[in-house]
Amino acid sequence: MTTYKLLLLPGDGIGTEIMAEVKTVIDWFGKRGVASFESEQDLAGGAAYDAHGKAISEATMKLAQESDAVIFGAVGGPKWDSVPYDVRPEAALLRLRKDLELFANLRPAICYPALADASSLKRELVEGLDILIVRELTGGVYFGSPKEIVTLENGQKRAVDTQLYTTSEIERIARVAFDLAKTRSSRVASAEKRNVMKSGVLWNQVVTKVGKEEYPDVALEHVLADNCAMQLVRRPKQYDVIVCDNLFGDILSDVAAMLTGSLGMLPSAALGAPDAVTGRRKSMYEPVHGSAPDIAGKGISNPIAMIASFAMALRYSFGLVEEADLLDRAISSVLSKGLRTGDIYTEGTQKVGTKEMGAAILKEL
Amino acid sequence: MTTYKLLLLPGDGIGTEIMAEVKTVIDWFGKRGVASFESEQDLAGGAAYDAHGKAISEATMKLAQESDAVIFGAVGGPKWDSVPYDVRPEAALLRLRKDLELFANLRPAICYPALADASSLKRELVEGLDILIVRELTGGVYFGSPKEIVTLENGQKRAVDTQLYTTSEIERIARVAFDLAKTRSSRVASAEKRNVMKSGVLWNQVVTKVGKEEYPDVALEHVLADNCAMQLVRRPKQYDVIVCDNLFGDILSDVAAMLTGSLGMLPSAALGAPDAVTGRRKSMYEPVHGSAPDIAGKGISNPIAMIASFAMALRYSFGLVEEADLLDRAISSVLSKGLRTGDIYTEGTQKVGTKEMGAAILKEL
Ligand SMILES: CC(C)[C@H](C(=O)O)[C@@H](O)C(=O)O
Ligand SMILES: CC(C)[C@H](C(=O)O)[C@@H](O)C(=O)O
Repeated sequence: MTTYKLLLLPGDGIGTEIMAEVKTVIDWFGKRGVASFESEQDLAGGAAYDAHGKAISEATMKLAQESDAVIFGAVGGPKWDSVPYDVRPEAALLRLRKDLELFANLRPAICYPALADASSLKRELVEGLDILIVRELTGGVYFGSPKEIVTLENGQKRAVDTQLYTTSEIERIARVAFDLAKTRSSRVASAEKRNVMKSGVLWNQVVTKVGKEEYPDVALEHVLADNCAMQLVRRPKQYDVIVCDNLFGDILSDVAAMLTGSLGMLPSAALGAPDAVTGRRKSMYEPVHGSAPDIAGKGISNPIAMIASFAMALRYSFGLVEEADLLDRAISSVLSKGLRTGDIYTEGTQKVGTKEMGAAILKEL
Repeated sequence: MTTYKLLLLPGDGIGTEIMAEVKTVIDWFGKRGVASFESEQDLAGGAAYDAHGKAISEATMKLAQESDAVIFGAVGGPKWDSVPYDVRPEAALLRLRKDLELFANLRPAICYPALADASSLKRELVEGLDILIVRELTGGVYFGSPKEIVTLENGQKRAVDTQLYTTSEIERIARVAFDLAKTRSSRVASAEKRNVMKSGVLWNQVVTKVGKEEYPDVALEHVLADNCAMQLVRRPKQYDVIVCDNLFGDILSDVAAMLTGSLGMLPSAALGAPDAVTGRRKSMYEPVHGSAPDIAGKGISNPIAMIASFAMALRYSFGLVEEADLLDRAISSVLSKGLRTGDIYTEGTQKVGTKEMGAAILKEL
């Protein structure tokens, strides 16, 4: 039986509560004997700042480097709104992504049938929606340098950020998108701003070439990022897999997530390249939603996105596809029985807290 | 009576048809004697490329520099999809914005009551929606350098775009947003990614300072650009004026426009600074929609966004506020009588072509 090392980083706000629930799920799968999970838990984000003055400590980074998967809650909150830029809670996330080279961010936007009415879009436009956004996560304007604010002679300040992409960075994320498209309906839409950005021009060229040479059977469409955002609102079901850069991916995946009406339900995965020898890859899994400081500590947050993130870990890091399906089914099943946390509650359903939702999913398993 | 110089640039696709309709409206206001309009017409975009090998000629740029307002149709189409980057149709738009220093882009997103059902959002979420997006238009990643693709020694290519903002660039767009907010409901939301971008950090600081020192009565809220995109989908009516940089403005204004269900109806204005002596400002007006090559030449396109753009010219360039209101009312009135072009047609309304719609608005005047 393979042993996998997990690093649990609950972070801030509701992160702690939802992490407690996914832990019971991890234990269940461990006891079931499909694999053995060794978990360690540590601080990240505002919690780490309070303890060490940094968003993530070197010791924690070392644990992350040694882990097979980081299970990440959420970071940030008003308490840390004015801490220095370099140690703000989000820096933990960015450092983990960059140092572990987690270049491929998978963000499914799925509309759970039971929740279609929670969408702000008309039901017929989102019912059955199943989009996968593949976002480049270690390049672009997030990490390019110069990235600085300088004071000019006349007292003015000038801020600079640099959007940077190389051929190989684009190739590897394109391949992830095409590979995943083959397991779905074999359609990829690549979004950029080639009409304004040189990185968009290169992005377009490289994705086109990879598609033509390596994936002739996958249908590839190019769409300008602004138009893509529009089309997501107009007719989201036209898309299957969308591949895009770090910044466009940030925005487009948020729009797509919001369309589903299921924000509290959506997981995400950040994956590195498989090791040439062992085939193992570094990875991090986190819910799409944030740390929701307004409801933290009340026991009413929705643990589903966090638990569904572990289902993605089973699927993408441990190759336990059947177990992943089992967990996804347990979630759907609890929903179809009418259990709802406050964020997805509608009349006629049964309102439950974080712990009850976690327990119900466990029972379903 | 003041004389204003107009430069009409129909551009490509449906640009020519909708320009023909706004011309009849301009003539009507000229004959009415509120001001005298001297119009010239010229090529831009693909049409200019076909004629001169450039998206806009030097002679046309000279006319634009001498004009009080450029009335712009739309550019681009599949015909020019593979022309070199520097002469692509969009280059006309970018050069006009930059050379005329049209730094303030006003993009209203209004949901016409008669069209609320055309939105993909539920009616109650968009009915009465009236957002004004104030987008910075001459800075940011659109124009910063380096902006290039270089071939590295190992044969790889590297693309770079540069996002650049100075204090004064942010100050002047912030003032436009605050000034406009005072004529509305005195609320500004400033959108950036200060958690990732240094330009976002500076943007946030400068907008905060301008707000505190110069507009203490305007309520200012800061929102991360990704969250803003989400919130636009979730509950758009929470916003009044949104101010943001060039790239975020591109995407957020498209999302906002699409929410209204009235894309073919939405105008925009791009304004320069008022001249210190004469008080006149350079300006350009254009519909938010594109050149729609698929329906070009069929006489079925919707001229309303183009005509409403001239209403913005009356308001912002010529100070003819009553006339602007008159024109806006004529448009609403034609809509409430049930006239619709194909893009906004619904059962029970009367389908008309471009010319009939233009004529109906003229008759209403
Ligand atoms: C928290 C923030 C740095 C992050 C990002 O911008 O990538 C978040 O918005 C996300 O999408 O994961
Ligand atoms: C055509 C393109 C260059 C332009 C932009 O990106 O600004 C358009 O999308 C717009 O919003 O006016």
